[in-house]
Amino acid sequence: MDHAAALDLSLDAAALTARLVDFPSVSGTEGPLADAIERALRDLPHLTVDRHGNNVVARTNLGRAERVVLAGHIDTVPIADNVPSRLDDDGVLWGCGTSDMKSGVAVQLRIAATVPEPNRDLTFVFYDNEEVSADLNGLGHVAKAHPDWLAGDFAVLLEPSDGEVEGGCQGTLRVILRVQGERAHSARSWMGSNAIHAAAPILARLASYEPRRPVIDGLQYHEGLNAVRIGGGVANNVIPDECTVTVNYRYAPDRTEHEAIAHVLEVFEGCGVTEVTIDDHSGGALPGLSHPAAAAFMEAVGGRARPKFGWTDVSRFAALGVPAVNYGPGDPLYAHKRDEHVAVARIHQCEERLRAWLTA
Amino acid sequence: MDHAAALDLSLDAAALTARLVDFPSVSGTEGPLADAIERALRDLPHLTVDRHGNNVVARTNLGRAERVVLAGHIDTVPIADNVPSRLDDDGVLWGCGTSDMKSGVAVQLRIAATVPEPNRDLTFVFYDNEEVSADLNGLGHVAKAHPDWLAGDFAVLLEPSDGEVEGGCQGTLRVILRVQGERAHSARSWMGSNAIHAAAPILARLASYEPRRPVIDGLQYHEGLNAVRIGGGVANNVIPDECTVTVNYRYAPDRTEHEAIAHVLEVFEGCGVTEVTIDDHSGGALPGLSHPAAAAFMEAVGGRARPKFGWTDVSRFAALGVPAVNYGPGDPLYAHKRDEHVAVARIHQCEERLRAWLTA
Repeated sequence: MDHAAALDLSLDAAALTARLVDFPSVSGTEGPLADAIERALRDLPHLTVDRHGNNVVARTNLGRAERVVLAGHIDTVPIADNVPSRLDDDGVLWGCGTSDMKSGVAVQLRIAATVPEPNRDLTFVFYDNEEVSADLNGLGHVAKAHPDWLAGDFAVLLEPSDGEVEGGCQGTLRVILRVQGERAHSARSWMGSNAIHAAAPILARLASYEPRRPVIDGLQYHEGLNAVRIGGGVANNVIPDECTVTVNYRYAPDRTEHEAIAHVLEVFEGCGVTEVTIDDHSGGALPGLSHPAAAAFMEAVGGRARPKFGWTDVSRFAALGVPAVNYGPGDPLYAHKRDEHVAVARIHQCEERLRAWLTA
Repeated sequence: MDHAAALDLSLDAAALTARLVDFPSVSGTEGPLADAIERALRDLPHLTVDRHGNNVVARTNLGRAERVVLAGHIDTVPIADNVPSRLDDDGVLWGCGTSDMKSGVAVQLRIAATVPEPNRDLTFVFYDNEEVSADLNGLGHVAKAHPDWLAGDFAVLLEPSDGEVEGGCQGTLRVILRVQGERAHSARSWMGSNAIHAAAPILARLASYEPRRPVIDGLQYHEGLNAVRIGGGVANNVIPDECTVTVNYRYAPDRTEHEAIAHVLEVFEGCGVTEVTIDDHSGGALPGLSHPAAAAFMEAVGGRARPKFGWTDVSRFAALGVPAVNYGPGDPLYAHKRDEHVAVARIHQCEERLRAWLTA
């Protein structure tokens, strides 16, 4: 199959989604699809195109007052007997990536091809390795190597959000709390010091913790501080000398990474923790809905924005000072599932609303 | 080597210990040693001898007012480059089983051979598989198949106790407490219910628990209620739906097994435990030092008895209604170790004191 020819940007967004689904691009194998996207975009005279690895960035250069970034990842999770795509009689397109997020990528490509003179300058970002470990993430690589390519006043990530706007995202901090004891035979327990018992104040603190629910840009976030793992024990007849509690703090984007760490340390102060290890940390992202470009976007797409509780790549834009939201046609509930699908009407709606916003 | 000849009961107890050490009998391979012991005992006209598997029981039948049981296991832990035995210039015998407990077995054999008319009828028990799992234990097998073979007024287990009397033993009960929650993504923790947090009251109860230290027959026992294991967690971003705490209750022998279970259930009442599993349970043994045979024994061996905190086979005698103590020449600190050893003087002292008690 001539893959380059397959990316005919004159197709409608649903047909283009089907073509993209039939062009497998499981994480790590995005090269041919990135080639095809690059070639199709280079055919468009109103765009300049850059490439870094298998990441393709295209933009208009019209000297508009504002610049908007439309971004999406081109990889999928492994195929689960659900390729090629299949359009059913109810207007639903089935297949790996229909929701997460080749329908979003199709919308990006359609806007790129059909809106040569947008009211805001546009940057289109197509990146790889979103479905695998964070250090491979193409958006992260571009942000590090060419942060200027991602510059803008506002960004829309076309991740599946069921046609609703999800603003910003909460940060996630994972720490391992270690409590130390001293081993002894359990028949002579008083000769040792039980590390599991010593973890009692940590669990009590967690059980009574009251999470914040701050309102930011009109969105109510909802924090959480939770033990996700606990472990301790040497043998059935030994007083354990160590107990570890892994705690996950999900925090609203009005807190910085530094503040999040300070908060967790404060919560467990006086709990007898002998060692704190930061296991993983990704900051949150402010929704930025008060920005004029975002306000115009909300007006064009309609509805009310929802807060995003999970961590997403919008946070990478936030780190560059670009407020960002998730808005895409896919249904997140079916992402990564064998029965992944998307409603064709949703794809068209998403495309139309973005076009309305960018051409009003 | 002619093993049968090796068991020359006219040797002194230290030399006999050395012969027994040089006759390997790691758990599961006791057959030849049991054969040799049986043969040696059958040569003694004042004893009747029975055998069950690799367990040998011999007894006098003099119609005395009291019967005393002297018991010991003939197996050892695996050899650790410490056989054959070696006698050093300081009168210390080194090798696998010197302490635990071929020195004790040698003393039993010497008493069997040299005290044909004891003041109390004697039963000698030599059993296998003490160093492995409880269901293989030879004393347990004899107790089940021929409880009458173990009948008596008092029993002495010649386990290493460094020449001191250790009375009775504490019971040990292990239960698994399970707490149930409900899974959710940790970014939306309020959609679930955290089972690790729900275990907080269990740990608080354990941390504040005040163990009993009852005095029984003049011996002060010391209980303990301890978490020996804790576990919970599904993934780093999932609210866990289960947490289990394994608790070990070591209890003084004035409590029955039934009372021990009832106590543990009472301690954790109201802690939100959704399931309690009894993982392991062995009752304690009363020291029985108020029995006349025991009192005479204490007088003969001298010193003060100590309470036994760990669980031992004396409990099997207790279950048959026979009070029992541990009293042997080995040093328990060196049991199961590469540098296992026993002082020759201790072996002779143990033998002499038992002889004094049984011939006074």
